[in-house]
Amino acid sequence: MASLKGACIIGQSGGPTSVINASAYGAIKTALESEDITAVYGALNGIKGVLNDNLIDMSKEDPEELELLKFTPSSALGSCRYKLKDPDDDDTDYKRILEIFQKYNVRYFFYNGGNDSMDTCNKISKFMLQNGYECRVMGIPKTIDNDLDGTDHCPGYASAAKYIATSMMEIYRDARVYDTGMITVVEIMGRNAGWLTAAAALAGYKGNGADLIYLPEVDFDMNSFISKVQEIYDRNGKCIVAVSEGIHDKDGKYIAEYATTAAQAKDSFGHAQMGGLAAYLAGVLQQQTGAKVRGIELSLLQRCAAHCASQTDIDESFSSGKAAVENALAGVTDKMVGFERSVDKNGNYVCNIKLFDLTVVANTEKKVPLSWLNKTQDGLNDLYIDYALPLIQGETKMVKEDGLPRFANLKKVRV
Amino acid sequence: MASLKGACIIGQSGGPTSVINASAYGAIKTALESEDITAVYGALNGIKGVLNDNLIDMSKEDPEELELLKFTPSSALGSCRYKLKDPDDDDTDYKRILEIFQKYNVRYFFYNGGNDSMDTCNKISKFMLQNGYECRVMGIPKTIDNDLDGTDHCPGYASAAKYIATSMMEIYRDARVYDTGMITVVEIMGRNAGWLTAAAALAGYKGNGADLIYLPEVDFDMNSFISKVQEIYDRNGKCIVAVSEGIHDKDGKYIAEYATTAAQAKDSFGHAQMGGLAAYLAGVLQQQTGAKVRGIELSLLQRCAAHCASQTDIDESFSSGKAAVENALAGVTDKMVGFERSVDKNGNYVCNIKLFDLTVVANTEKKVPLSWLNKTQDGLNDLYIDYALPLIQGETKMVKEDGLPRFANLKKVRV
Repeated sequence: MASLKGACIIGQSGGPTSVINASAYGAIKTALESEDITAVYGALNGIKGVLNDNLIDMSKEDPEELELLKFTPSSALGSCRYKLKDPDDDDTDYKRILEIFQKYNVRYFFYNGGNDSMDTCNKISKFMLQNGYECRVMGIPKTIDNDLDGTDHCPGYASAAKYIATSMMEIYRDARVYDTGMITVVEIMGRNAGWLTAAAALAGYKGNGADLIYLPEVDFDMNSFISKVQEIYDRNGKCIVAVSEGIHDKDGKYIAEYATTAAQAKDSFGHAQMGGLAAYLAGVLQQQTGAKVRGIELSLLQRCAAHCASQTDIDESFSSGKAAVENALAGVTDKMVGFERSVDKNGNYVCNIKLFDLTVVANTEKKVPLSWLNKTQDGLNDLYIDYALPLIQGETKMVKEDGLPRFANLKKVRV
Repeated sequence: MASLKGACIIGQSGGPTSVINASAYGAIKTALESEDITAVYGALNGIKGVLNDNLIDMSKEDPEELELLKFTPSSALGSCRYKLKDPDDDDTDYKRILEIFQKYNVRYFFYNGGNDSMDTCNKISKFMLQNGYECRVMGIPKTIDNDLDGTDHCPGYASAAKYIATSMMEIYRDARVYDTGMITVVEIMGRNAGWLTAAAALAGYKGNGADLIYLPEVDFDMNSFISKVQEIYDRNGKCIVAVSEGIHDKDGKYIAEYATTAAQAKDSFGHAQMGGLAAYLAGVLQQQTGAKVRGIELSLLQRCAAHCASQTDIDESFSSGKAAVENALAGVTDKMVGFERSVDKNGNYVCNIKLFDLTVVANTEKKVPLSWLNKTQDGLNDLYIDYALPLIQGETKMVKEDGLPRFANLKKVRV
């Protein structure tokens, strides 16, 4: 493959994670060190930064500040939830992207996001190809939801899972200090896939977990739920429940929708907004059991708690960004960098880079396999523990200043 | 002072903290090493454990497991919210306590709790004195609320403050990833004193903080609040607000009370139950500003997040428990172990143990000085930062196993 000289653009999209910047840093650092890549630009707020010619010059940043990206949560370049139209219907955006690519001689495009972002990569790549503009496009995955198809797991998941499991263990201890009864409902993110809620099972593996875990992979039955909680509460005086925000009844209606009479807003991808489920279920249980019930929503803390990130996740995220650039330089295009799991001679977890077709990844959601649930479908079995445990190993080496996180502060010098 | 030989009882009371067990460990370890103390008992669920003759033998615990108490959140011995009656009205409980003390020759009583617990210590001590039973009684403070009078600060506060400041910094980053507008309301614990909410100012000191901070020390005016948020939102497109759960209007009515039409339950100390304030204020702001608004309740995570504890707090908590036993052995009684702040030759923070009369501490609440607030009373000034910053220094050396906390598991062998 002939070398391709030109600039690159790196963008971030979708909901942030604790380690999305570690991925971006892997790509930025590798691109800055490359001879073929003549300039490294960051697109502010994802693809909108390209459309609006809102680019920053990453070479103008202090290298030490850039390195802090490894420990800085949320999208340092800014994110967006902008969905590109189908180019057959309206190719305005694509023409504009091509115009910007030509203006800066952009030959490499790296997009760091979830399944919607892989879809964006895919469409841009096809359009460039159809228009005879050579540009290598690589997707760098991120999502706390862990729902990207193909890859063994997604950068961002493990840190959120580690935070959830740690917090569940701490909540477990807190819920047991009094000799009076207490039911606790913890609401965890995950619209259609229960990977994050499943992480509550890691706390259970350490003996400090939820009694019941409800994933959106299984239809939620309120009567069954109430009677199970009642039975555990009657037996132990305590009951801790972990529920996914996306649990739904057998007709597919989100339980969270019962929580508010207000109409649910929908975002630009048509997703219903969630929230208030823990408080709702706590109210139901209080009424039905008469017990003291507490509802806790982990809210966005679970996606930004970089102070509790998995070092394994940070390292793998960095590797995925680095591999995206290295592979593009070697001539690869139209791929997402993913992971394949293997074991070394000693049986220890090894994470290998594997490339996936963007078409495979885009717009599909990987669910928790039903075979990983217990028989009563209110908990996880060892298959999940074996899967998740290696991912959450290692403590972040986050830089602290005055006892608090020292996050990266980018200068963001406009091109 | 003649040495006093006999057993000791250690109990924990009130809401737990991340480091209450570090205090207990300081007391237990020192007592176990003492020659005068013939037996070290833990009272299960505080004073209820004494009343119910529900004691455990701390010498039967594995020393390595006991040491893990330094990093184990929530009350390992169990807690209670049992309020002793005034002995002049009903001395039944006190007679029972004396009976138990006599049964086990208990000559030392260490109670680890907040202001209600100091009140309990005080009453027990007086009763024993009146009945001619020699027993040295020491209070070991704990409260995330930091509202105990006399002492410079309370064990437990700094770890909660560190968690709140860290989480606020992370939320700040998360709230800024999109180029669309966003208002975020974060609800923080603290019924009558704003110390915990003030910790949001530490995030601001690091440039990642709340725009507005509302403490219960100042009457809350809804119209002023809405217009301030609107003004900041119009200017920046973002606004982050930290509110204490205990904010109230000029008539003293809690804003949280407006949040639910349901009657507010009261605990045995007559405190109104709180919650739902963030969601309520988010709703008000959404309606008034039309912006996207998110309400986040830090909930009990802020009092149990041992994974983000301040090592300074852990060390000081341990010291306070140790000092309680050492002072009692030296003949001191009827005191609470507190802290006095000084500086060393280099101007660095030093924390010295100071003893306070239980009568001074019991049933008073120390508020945030109004002189530490900014002129508009919606933020803190440097006096607070100078006060709080030394307390949150140092990262916990929490023991991890499988990438998750390894908490203490006590055998709890009954006496």
